[in-house]
Amino acid sequence: MNNIDVGCELQYEVKSPTTMLFNLSVASTEYQTVVSESLWLTPYIMAEQLEVGATLNRVQRVYAEPGLFNIQYIANVNLGAEIHCPESLVEKPYSCIPAEVLPYLNPSRYCQSDLLGNFAMSEFGGEEHGYRRVQAICDWTYQHLAYVSGSTDSETTARDVLVQRQGVCRDFAHLGISLCRGLGIPARYVSGYAIDLEPPDFHGFFEAYLGERWYLFDATRLARVEGLIRIATGVDASEVPFATLIGTTELKLKSVWARLSNSSQSLVVPAKESAVSTA
Amino acid sequence: MNNIDVGCELQYEVKSPTTMLFNLSVASTEYQTVVSESLWLTPYIMAEQLEVGATLNRVQRVYAEPGLFNIQYIANVNLGAEIHCPESLVEKPYSCIPAEVLPYLNPSRYCQSDLLGNFAMSEFGGEEHGYRRVQAICDWTYQHLAYVSGSTDSETTARDVLVQRQGVCRDFAHLGISLCRGLGIPARYVSGYAIDLEPPDFHGFFEAYLGERWYLFDATRLARVEGLIRIATGVDASEVPFATLIGTTELKLKSVWARLSNSSQSLVVPAKESAVSTA
Amino acid sequence: MNNIDVGCELQYEVKSPTTMLFNLSVASTEYQTVVSESLWLTPYIMAEQLEVGATLNRVQRVYAEPGLFNIQYIANVNLGAEIHCPESLVEKPYSCIPAEVLPYLNPSRYCQSDLLGNFAMSEFGGEEHGYRRVQAICDWTYQHLAYVSGSTDSETTARDVLVQRQGVCRDFAHLGISLCRGLGIPARYVSGYAIDLEPPDFHGFFEAYLGERWYLFDATRLARVEGLIRIATGVDASEVPFATLIGTTELKLKSVWARLSNSSQSLVVPAKESAVSTA
Amino acid sequence: MNNIDVGCELQYEVKSPTTMLFNLSVASTEYQTVVSESLWLTPYIMAEQLEVGATLNRVQRVYAEPGLFNIQYIANVNLGAEIHCPESLVEKPYSCIPAEVLPYLNPSRYCQSDLLGNFAMSEFGGEEHGYRRVQAICDWTYQHLAYVSGSTDSETTARDVLVQRQGVCRDFAHLGISLCRGLGIPARYVSGYAIDLEPPDFHGFFEAYLGERWYLFDATRLARVEGLIRIATGVDASEVPFATLIGTTELKLKSVWARLSNSSQSLVVPAKESAVSTA
Repeated sequence: MNNIDVGCELQYEVKSPTTMLFNLSVASTEYQTVVSESLWLTPYIMAEQLEVGATLNRVQRVYAEPGLFNIQYIANVNLGAEIHCPESLVEKPYSCIPAEVLPYLNPSRYCQSDLLGNFAMSEFGGEEHGYRRVQAICDWTYQHLAYVSGSTDSETTARDVLVQRQGVCRDFAHLGISLCRGLGIPARYVSGYAIDLEPPDFHGFFEAYLGERWYLFDATRLARVEGLIRIATGVDASEVPFATLIGTTELKLKSVWARLSNSSQSLVVPAKESAVSTA
Repeated sequence: MNNIDVGCELQYEVKSPTTMLFNLSVASTEYQTVVSESLWLTPYIMAEQLEVGATLNRVQRVYAEPGLFNIQYIANVNLGAEIHCPESLVEKPYSCIPAEVLPYLNPSRYCQSDLLGNFAMSEFGGEEHGYRRVQAICDWTYQHLAYVSGSTDSETTARDVLVQRQGVCRDFAHLGISLCRGLGIPARYVSGYAIDLEPPDFHGFFEAYLGERWYLFDATRLARVEGLIRIATGVDASEVPFATLIGTTELKLKSVWARLSNSSQSLVVPAKESAVSTA
Repeated sequence: MNNIDVGCELQYEVKSPTTMLFNLSVASTEYQTVVSESLWLTPYIMAEQLEVGATLNRVQRVYAEPGLFNIQYIANVNLGAEIHCPESLVEKPYSCIPAEVLPYLNPSRYCQSDLLGNFAMSEFGGEEHGYRRVQAICDWTYQHLAYVSGSTDSETTARDVLVQRQGVCRDFAHLGISLCRGLGIPARYVSGYAIDLEPPDFHGFFEAYLGERWYLFDATRLARVEGLIRIATGVDASEVPFATLIGTTELKLKSVWARLSNSSQSLVVPAKESAVSTA
Repeated sequence: MNNIDVGCELQYEVKSPTTMLFNLSVASTEYQTVVSESLWLTPYIMAEQLEVGATLNRVQRVYAEPGLFNIQYIANVNLGAEIHCPESLVEKPYSCIPAEVLPYLNPSRYCQSDLLGNFAMSEFGGEEHGYRRVQAICDWTYQHLAYVSGSTDSETTARDVLVQRQGVCRDFAHLGISLCRGLGIPARYVSGYAIDLEPPDFHGFFEAYLGERWYLFDATRLARVEGLIRIATGVDASEVPFATLIGTTELKLKSVWARLSNSSQSLVVPAKESAVSTA
């Protein structure tokens, strides 16, 4: 069990009246407990609390007048180790995938799993099914993509990335998701905070449905899954932007952090885990 | 109020054990009441009933062994006229769109509204907002796309269609959805049956969120919105395939129909409607 | 007849041994006479003179060692007015297009005229054939594309531009070329200098084959065709880059200019021309 | 030295007056001598002989009135073995590539070598340079693409094929060309006849510039390079279609053949060749 402090601060120069949606607050899940959290808006505006999408992502909607606008969020989170015996995790046959999981097999804006199905089958069709196959996808992604800041933009899809062989964290996640879906493994995108991310920023990773639940993966190897704190969950990044701004604004400041609550602590990693990170 | 008989029959030669998902049953909504319905599977297999996605689309899952497999569905549906005073329907400002509607502003697999935003704004930015603007999108789509059977496939997106200027019903719907989203109007895909469709087949159309609810549109002009019977609702066609087949099969027979229950009847169209179909 | 001074200066920090190809020297054609020209390389390296491609574009190849590298080019050019009676210019029937012109009907890297054929025919199929039809393409392009610096990159094609509705000079030219080819009018890309371009830079425009020869067009309306000085000609921009650098370099300085030789002069425009620029 | 009979017959129902360009006649090159050839047009129409493109491809242009139209071509060709000591063939440094070869480094309609450069470098950057590196590209292509008739169409590019992992001969060639160019090796498309092709058809392959000249490669392994008879050469298939038809026609019959002139003969393969086809 890890206890983690996360937070961010964003400052905008608002140039025209702007509706803003923020998706920065950490989620409450079976493995992630929000101990405490605070949100400051300056100047103070009443924020509407929304729960958006199938996973009820926590969104704050505000309407800002021209001028400086600042949003700061901090939270303290208890994070359970999610993985215990990965070797035993199996892929669910299509006939047994729960109804609420089926949508995560469909192709989506950035994850055209239909187009990548042949590639997925030829590259990973022969792998041992289960957790190890998803790990093999992450390993392949890590080995074949270069992490290059600024190499992609908001139009870049998993298909583009498979060709151009470079991207950032969301691109790594999109490719992992697409390859899983192409093999019949439900997969989805997770936005969040991450301990030890260098340089510090929001992070994007993914999870795959194995056995009876979802398991986190990060093909970038920039952060350990034990240090990933979930904000929101969606079919891909198109569903979970950190900020959506309808109006004219300019980002003036952005700061994001995540650290163990007690600096003398170190990240608790389940004993079994070392056995599977073979790559 | 129209009373309509719909149905379909599909026959497959199943060549390997196959998991099948069917999404053929009509939906129950405020405007659409299922009076009666029946489903026959031959040979008889127990079908699992699933409710899939945000709109709880009704999916039957079966596992078929090799051999001939036949599914037949019939239903009698009461359909309320959905539109009353379209002139008064306004677009909801972004700050007031309900949380459950927000996801239908995101780009999706076939509706890259992010890529088509500039086009949507330059072509329709100056139109009067509201129902008439969505109607203008339908008119433009009808006037600029040719309906050509076989001109597109399962990879074709709204962006492709905007360039190649031809497609089938799902492509018309995808383009309409993308242009609406590009203007900030939530829009989504509807699969269904349609009266007077020639040749008879399943149909794809779309709906846009105006005022306080969703309104149907069909840019193909192949069927009147008063004769559209909803099966399923999704971000685009990727979420609502009529049949998903995991295994090796060959479609041997397909028959789809929709007609007024009493053949002496004719389709009831709200009096006001004629005023808006100006194109 | 206009007498024009053009030139440019490029300075690179060469970080690894680099082969450089420059395509900056003005072409000699029936309508464009090079009165004088000079090229300085600092440090002095022997440049190999190459004639590349079907139109024998003038390319200088040098091999630069690490350090500062500077290239400066100036020329004085006599430019004939190319257009006389545009109303009488006809499109050549396919059966009469000369062999050396046929390649300019093929699709190319940035000009996928095959994909844009339907669009071209539906939008311009009904226009009066000839010079006016190409002018109509330029007018449409000017009216429907926004000129936005930095909105496109070296991967952007005419198809992308048709959807996103913005681009820079080369994108305007690529769209014009694609639409011409889609109608059966041979068209090709021209790189060059341009008088009155603001801010001063290299320019990209296009030419179409009408009557018995090629005629220049510039859909950006940023420069008059009477002030366009040709450097190179190709199927699209992929064939005529100003600089190709095989090695690691950083551009430190770029300066480009074009002006009438005698500043008291003004640009000579053929009397007839005013009649055609109706848009 | 192989002596080969090739030929083809095409029959069209011409429905509207149609300009036709045929590019079926074998080329004369240093390694390929046309001993005899004949062309029959029925009904007899005078065919205009054109030489098109940088390699002067032999094109016949005819103008056909409505009715049946038949073209038959036969030739007897002497084919020299083109490869002698492939191990010694080196890649030309960029600074030494001849001017007339430089255009074959540019990206083209179907070969977006700019987009595939990263992939090419990461997969083949470490291979021994020269003939073996191009052979490694062919081996990779053969191993990673499935040859599936009908899996691609006239819009399919090398980039599409790299993702979907299937295609036909022209797609294999386009991918090979793109990967070569991405590594700085000039490469181009060759259309032709091929001995032992099953089923018999026209064929598409490619050649790469190594040492001091062009060498043929066929990544499909459907035919031996010693049995490839060149028709035309271009940047990709967009430049060398077998038939271009401007009008409304329907292909009624197509027959293509290529065989050793004396059936008792077998294909002469240079002794050294066996050493290199290691894959």
